[in-house]
Amino acid sequence: MQAKVLIINGPNLNTLGTREPDIYGHSTLAEIESHMQAILSEGQIEAEFYQSNHEGELIDKLQSTGPECDLVIINAGALTHYGIALYDALKVLGRPVIEVHMTNIYSREPFRRKSLLSPLAVGGIFGFGPLSYYLAARAAIDYLGRKKAR
Amino acid sequence: MQAKVLIINGPNLNTLGTREPDIYGHSTLAEIESHMQAILSEGQIEAEFYQSNHEGELIDKLQSTGPECDLVIINAGALTHYGIALYDALKVLGRPVIEVHMTNIYSREPFRRKSLLSPLAVGGIFGFGPLSYYLAARAAIDYLGRKKAR
Amino acid sequence: MQAKVLIINGPNLNTLGTREPDIYGHSTLAEIESHMQAILSEGQIEAEFYQSNHEGELIDKLQSTGPECDLVIINAGALTHYGIALYDALKVLGRPVIEVHMTNIYSREPFRRKSLLSPLAVGGIFGFGPLSYYLAARAAIDYLGRKKAR
Amino acid sequence: MQAKVLIINGPNLNTLGTREPDIYGHSTLAEIESHMQAILSEGQIEAEFYQSNHEGELIDKLQSTGPECDLVIINAGALTHYGIALYDALKVLGRPVIEVHMTNIYSREPFRRKSLLSPLAVGGIFGFGPLSYYLAARAAIDYLGRKKAR
Amino acid sequence: MQAKVLIINGPNLNTLGTREPDIYGHSTLAEIESHMQAILSEGQIEAEFYQSNHEGELIDKLQSTGPECDLVIINAGALTHYGIALYDALKVLGRPVIEVHMTNIYSREPFRRKSLLSPLAVGGIFGFGPLSYYLAARAAIDYLGRKKAR
Amino acid sequence: MQAKVLIINGPNLNTLGTREPDIYGHSTLAEIESHMQAILSEGQIEAEFYQSNHEGELIDKLQSTGPECDLVIINAGALTHYGIALYDALKVLGRPVIEVHMTNIYSREPFRRKSLLSPLAVGGIFGFGPLSYYLAARAAIDYLGRKKAR
Amino acid sequence: MQAKVLIINGPNLNTLGTREPDIYGHSTLAEIESHMQAILSEGQIEAEFYQSNHEGELIDKLQSTGPECDLVIINAGALTHYGIALYDALKVLGRPVIEVHMTNIYSREPFRRKSLLSPLAVGGIFGFGPLSYYLAARAAIDYLGRKKAR
Amino acid sequence: MQAKVLIINGPNLNTLGTREPDIYGHSTLAEIESHMQAILSEGQIEAEFYQSNHEGELIDKLQSTGPECDLVIINAGALTHYGIALYDALKVLGRPVIEVHMTNIYSREPFRRKSLLSPLAVGGIFGFGPLSYYLAARAAIDYLGRKKAR
Amino acid sequence: MQAKVLIINGPNLNTLGTREPDIYGHSTLAEIESHMQAILSEGQIEAEFYQSNHEGELIDKLQSTGPECDLVIINAGALTHYGIALYDALKVLGRPVIEVHMTNIYSREPFRRKSLLSPLAVGGIFGFGPLSYYLAARAAIDYLGRKKAR
Amino acid sequence: MQAKVLIINGPNLNTLGTREPDIYGHSTLAEIESHMQAILSEGQIEAEFYQSNHEGELIDKLQSTGPECDLVIINAGALTHYGIALYDALKVLGRPVIEVHMTNIYSREPFRRKSLLSPLAVGGIFGFGPLSYYLAARAAIDYLGRKKAR
Amino acid sequence: MQAKVLIINGPNLNTLGTREPDIYGHSTLAEIESHMQAILSEGQIEAEFYQSNHEGELIDKLQSTGPECDLVIINAGALTHYGIALYDALKVLGRPVIEVHMTNIYSREPFRRKSLLSPLAVGGIFGFGPLSYYLAARAAIDYLGRKKAR
Amino acid sequence: MQAKVLIINGPNLNTLGTREPDIYGHSTLAEIESHMQAILSEGQIEAEFYQSNHEGELIDKLQSTGPECDLVIINAGALTHYGIALYDALKVLGRPVIEVHMTNIYSREPFRRKSLLSPLAVGGIFGFGPLSYYLAARAAIDYLGRKKAR
Repeated sequence: MQAKVLIINGPNLNTLGTREPDIYGHSTLAEIESHMQAILSEGQIEAEFYQSNHEGELIDKLQSTGPECDLVIINAGALTHYGIALYDALKVLGRPVIEVHMTNIYSREPFRRKSLLSPLAVGGIFGFGPLSYYLAARAAIDYLGRKKAR
Repeated sequence: MQAKVLIINGPNLNTLGTREPDIYGHSTLAEIESHMQAILSEGQIEAEFYQSNHEGELIDKLQSTGPECDLVIINAGALTHYGIALYDALKVLGRPVIEVHMTNIYSREPFRRKSLLSPLAVGGIFGFGPLSYYLAARAAIDYLGRKKAR
Repeated sequence: MQAKVLIINGPNLNTLGTREPDIYGHSTLAEIESHMQAILSEGQIEAEFYQSNHEGELIDKLQSTGPECDLVIINAGALTHYGIALYDALKVLGRPVIEVHMTNIYSREPFRRKSLLSPLAVGGIFGFGPLSYYLAARAAIDYLGRKKAR
Repeated sequence: MQAKVLIINGPNLNTLGTREPDIYGHSTLAEIESHMQAILSEGQIEAEFYQSNHEGELIDKLQSTGPECDLVIINAGALTHYGIALYDALKVLGRPVIEVHMTNIYSREPFRRKSLLSPLAVGGIFGFGPLSYYLAARAAIDYLGRKKAR
Repeated sequence: MQAKVLIINGPNLNTLGTREPDIYGHSTLAEIESHMQAILSEGQIEAEFYQSNHEGELIDKLQSTGPECDLVIINAGALTHYGIALYDALKVLGRPVIEVHMTNIYSREPFRRKSLLSPLAVGGIFGFGPLSYYLAARAAIDYLGRKKAR
Repeated sequence: MQAKVLIINGPNLNTLGTREPDIYGHSTLAEIESHMQAILSEGQIEAEFYQSNHEGELIDKLQSTGPECDLVIINAGALTHYGIALYDALKVLGRPVIEVHMTNIYSREPFRRKSLLSPLAVGGIFGFGPLSYYLAARAAIDYLGRKKAR
Repeated sequence: MQAKVLIINGPNLNTLGTREPDIYGHSTLAEIESHMQAILSEGQIEAEFYQSNHEGELIDKLQSTGPECDLVIINAGALTHYGIALYDALKVLGRPVIEVHMTNIYSREPFRRKSLLSPLAVGGIFGFGPLSYYLAARAAIDYLGRKKAR
Repeated sequence: MQAKVLIINGPNLNTLGTREPDIYGHSTLAEIESHMQAILSEGQIEAEFYQSNHEGELIDKLQSTGPECDLVIINAGALTHYGIALYDALKVLGRPVIEVHMTNIYSREPFRRKSLLSPLAVGGIFGFGPLSYYLAARAAIDYLGRKKAR
Repeated sequence: MQAKVLIINGPNLNTLGTREPDIYGHSTLAEIESHMQAILSEGQIEAEFYQSNHEGELIDKLQSTGPECDLVIINAGALTHYGIALYDALKVLGRPVIEVHMTNIYSREPFRRKSLLSPLAVGGIFGFGPLSYYLAARAAIDYLGRKKAR
Repeated sequence: MQAKVLIINGPNLNTLGTREPDIYGHSTLAEIESHMQAILSEGQIEAEFYQSNHEGELIDKLQSTGPECDLVIINAGALTHYGIALYDALKVLGRPVIEVHMTNIYSREPFRRKSLLSPLAVGGIFGFGPLSYYLAARAAIDYLGRKKAR
Repeated sequence: MQAKVLIINGPNLNTLGTREPDIYGHSTLAEIESHMQAILSEGQIEAEFYQSNHEGELIDKLQSTGPECDLVIINAGALTHYGIALYDALKVLGRPVIEVHMTNIYSREPFRRKSLLSPLAVGGIFGFGPLSYYLAARAAIDYLGRKKAR
Repeated sequence: MQAKVLIINGPNLNTLGTREPDIYGHSTLAEIESHMQAILSEGQIEAEFYQSNHEGELIDKLQSTGPECDLVIINAGALTHYGIALYDALKVLGRPVIEVHMTNIYSREPFRRKSLLSPLAVGGIFGFGPLSYYLAARAAIDYLGRKKAR
């Protein structure tokens, strides 16, 4: 049976590609999602994408769609640093989590250097721009493959 | 004349009973609310229940329904620790507040050991599972009774 | 067979009712203990009460009487905040502990906002005046009942 | 060509004038907005007003309406102190920001003494009640005038 | 009867306009004072200006001229951050205080991000260059007008 | 009618004069008490002296003898720094408190530089050896005299 | 031969008696100095008094007059908390120092609870209003007497 | 002439062997004391043992019996972390002190990782269960032997 | 022309696969390096591998071989947290750096939660076991490819 | 079968006995090792000794010789406070560790008061000079004896 | 053309040589200045010297004489640690600054271990007594020489 | 008899002149050492130079060559901030130490602003590039000359 991955993007990530391209690159979120789709399909994995600027909606989504998924890839944007409710929703869900950041959060403002979500993630990738998402997709395929193998 | 109590539940508390039952027990939020209803009815108190994963919706509710209530019982979930806007909504409302937690927040992750809401509460109850809510209902009856007596 | 609860009160709680009544109310400790006795009796639970201004005596009591009790209800007064030896005595005893405070310790002096005892308690109640004790008694009945049921 | 200013009000500011008038004065948000409208019109500036109790909605608004505006005046309410996602939305937008507070946030609770938004603002005004908004409107006229002059 | 305002400028503000014009603009302190004079005159308010690089002289001035004034507008320069004696002089004086900064002190060196004076000010204005002073003058007119009205 | 003062000495102060005379001088506690007695008698004030190494006994004493006294002079020894229960006993008592230290606690180990008791004292004297006690006695006479005068 | 004491008063203490009399009492600095003069004369001690709002002038005075004095009594006002240069001047002088405060600095704003000067003082007195000065005068007589006796 | 050692055990150490044997082992305090007695006798050293749950009694003992002893071995239990009065009693006594802990206090709760007593001890031993006491006895023999040798 | 990557492994990483396999997996460092070699070869990239338990040797290697490489992949092991000299060697070298960790360092001991190296890395990958290295190899290919493309 | 113990000494401990003899005594490291050898031989335990000023060499040694040993006695010298790589090497090795210090590290410079290694040690001994090593040897015999007994 | 250097000495440095000669040496400030004059003359540099105990006067001097100088050598005495206004005056001046201390400020009281001025200095010299000034003079010659060379 | 100075350079200082010349200048370490040699020869002082990227080798060198030297000049590079073992080696050696930094460590990354070595140095020089070393050489000549003179 095929596995499914939920890819969550938090506040302001819907503006990717259209603003501050020198920092975040020229790829739009749609383009990134499309490329992730391709990678995951190759790995026989179904993908569902969701973005919202509302912490509450992200939690609602994790509660409604999360249980039918095998793994969550998340770039929580600024909620990475204070969204304890989002953290709880991920913890309650109990699925493996892969954390993604396009920028190197450790070389930016001090309040960005601590991720609430890292301690509950399987692993994470930061700083590679759109590639961060693609590496996360590969990590998801590998992780789910190993799990099936057992 | 009869008093009214507003019972607010914050993010992720709608999943009670269906997930992590070894931590949170097997009672669903609906069952807990139903039992609170019974206790408050005995005390001649009307109850209104509200749950949301959105801080904004909790504030909207406190602004719309709060003024017609005499007391608020609240388990703000993770917002307990960072929801300053929710704190403000309770402060602006000016009704007595009783704080409830099902778990012992002081024996969990460090970021859960500080409640923003405690300083503005009348009192609080933590750690007894669903019983925390029922004791809060009894405290509300007692508090409103004493107030009426004066 | 009947259960037994030990109710411990720490320094200065023997002055309840006779001083600062606007803060602590008009009930004396004797009156509070008498009302707790009534509640616990209803729940078929034997109660033993003890108050001392000496940390050493509280520890002696927990060592001598504690082992024959099934649960401890404690308002440690100021020792809540620095009595590590008392904390150890409760931990060594290994019985479930319910923490009680008449006032809301989280809205008072900064040094009162941290309780050493909370992390080892089953749960706690703060801020309801004498009612805090009565709710604790009810919580004890519930807790011991559930335990028996298993 | 005429300039446009977006005036954002965060959580609980919709209750201005109707509650705690001794702290926040008797002016409603509508009255304040109407007076700002008058001042900005005099300066040949179009104004759009928005209030929400939801951080997500404030971000949505900044993304949708922000790009067609030349400057943002914001009183983020409690989000001033923890709304990093709102901070990001303002940063992504890249328009000049003027920060407004009706009260003196530096003489209130400790957690209100630090504003996340101040470092990215052009300037700010605090403590003058409704006048804070009107001075901000004048500052906006001056700022946009100087910019045009260049 | 006419009101009077004392405008105090602390260390290094006498160099305005002649040094670091890209940070502080081209207006000299004399020009700023002259424009404030004009604004305050319109509001029927007498103005007295004083600048010194000596904390002691600023205190002497507040003690000698302060009592005959109705309000103080102050840009304490670097003393904002460590001049407790100046703070005391303002507190002893007991007149309403408006705090002014030309730059955004919250986006500069860490030691500039905390103002000793803010907690005792009525309100404050930061970041608008010379306009900060002019808005303060308008705030003073408004403040004194409301006071007279009562 | 004559006033009465309770003079409390905490842990290890019973060893004064017999050990470490180069730090604490050659006066025994008995000699100091005798000299205080003489000073207070001159001021028409009755004195009662109490020393214990047990925090609990000091609290018992404040509860039993305190209410019949008009003022407390206390050198709490090491309890100055951690005896919150003793602090509470003084606060509950509600009598004016004068704090005494023979040594300069601010030039010793870091943990001695903070006195829990200072915030609730009328005033205090440190560093003068036995003279600290005698000045405290004079301060007590002055304080009670002024109070009577009103 | 007769001893001499220098009594130093720091910023804002020249306003004693004329402002905030409910906090600082009705005695002017002149009256306090006159009464100290009387006490010290009785002890055969010459007194010189100096007050300034300028830290620099206080240091100049300690350098010029200090060497011909045997002891310094100082109420440094707000400089108590940040005047390291004044601290150095006292240390360089090498005379015994007695620290005086009229109010209880430990029950006021947090930044007043730490005295830079205490560690280098012989001893100190706080909280007794004008009496603090008079007790300091007596302590000076005692201290110089004991020194002579050796 | 024969030397004498005082062995002090603080709060809760009287329960050794009877509770939590998996942490503290099966040896009772009496058995440990008996074995220490044997080791010290071999070294020609007299031993006196004392245990109390009261900090005050431990201080009383150090004052009464301490002066006739040559060295103190102490396991202060929880008082290790907050018993400043006990620390003072040891310091006043002026005898060499050896600190003992049965468990590794550095791998337990954070508040146990700092010992107030370590800085005034000659040396210490932690983590070896009853053996910690026996090694301390051997260290005492060695220490007193070397001292005699000089 | 072909690019070259230097892969550095710090202290204790030579023990991979042979110890604690439940934490670090069964792959030896040689196996991991062999698989990285394969991936990089596919991307037309030459690889050089180096491991040492000596910070000095790692710095020597970066100085000798670093300049002929285009990118560094580094798992600095424990030096991640305190090896400032290693950090300097990487900074002096001036080549892009990719940081790798096999485990999730953010869910381990507190001293492991801060990486000195992250701020100067292009990006990083943590928590995926051997896969962390392989993803880093892919990221290196991508990074060098994009650079060549420009 | 006979057990084996590895005794590790860190930086600067090779200078024992030849420098600062008033702090560290007159015994050289060779003499101490020789006496430890004797004690361990009596306990039927083989001993291997190693000292280096290089953290890397200490790790190499633990990796090469550690696995054939049953217990490690270590005085890591200054690496006690920052040698996380050494800590890791001990943790990876998985053998019981006994920590030794000749001086009382808790009464020296603040940066010496925290040992990284203590949390993973079985137990430790500090402050007794060369005796610290000999007691550690006895503790090793006892520990290995008990283990064999099981 | 000839360069000019301004040498500023802060509070209490006028007492050099006459007090505490064992700490600060026997050279007076005049002697030091005379020797600096000689060194600077050799380097074809004009020198102006200024000392004051008043922070305000030091700022006045930097504003009046500073602009005609090419470099400032400063020993700010205690103002090094809290004189932000002096720091601002140096920053506004925009000339290169060399920081001098006669003593090793890093081995004295904790509050002396942080210099406000170091971050804006070209470089600094501490701990060599009068030689610190002479090395600073040589550094000034070198610095101005190199600048001219460019 | 002639004196001898040991000049130690820590990690990465061997790359001076060849990399980052805009920060560190164009002088190589060899050129700097050659110029120091010349200065010291003039002062009749023999010089030995040593550089290593290994903390252990620096300690070995201090132990082997240190005792035959009269003074150490050290630029410990990054070890300045965490090399406690190096600090110990310098302390054990007991020779006067002069600390050198080419850059202004107080205006760089926060972790570079604290030097472990400063408290045990005679004095130090920072920020003057190669000149820092030459001034240190002159300071060494002066220091050793004064010592000989005594």
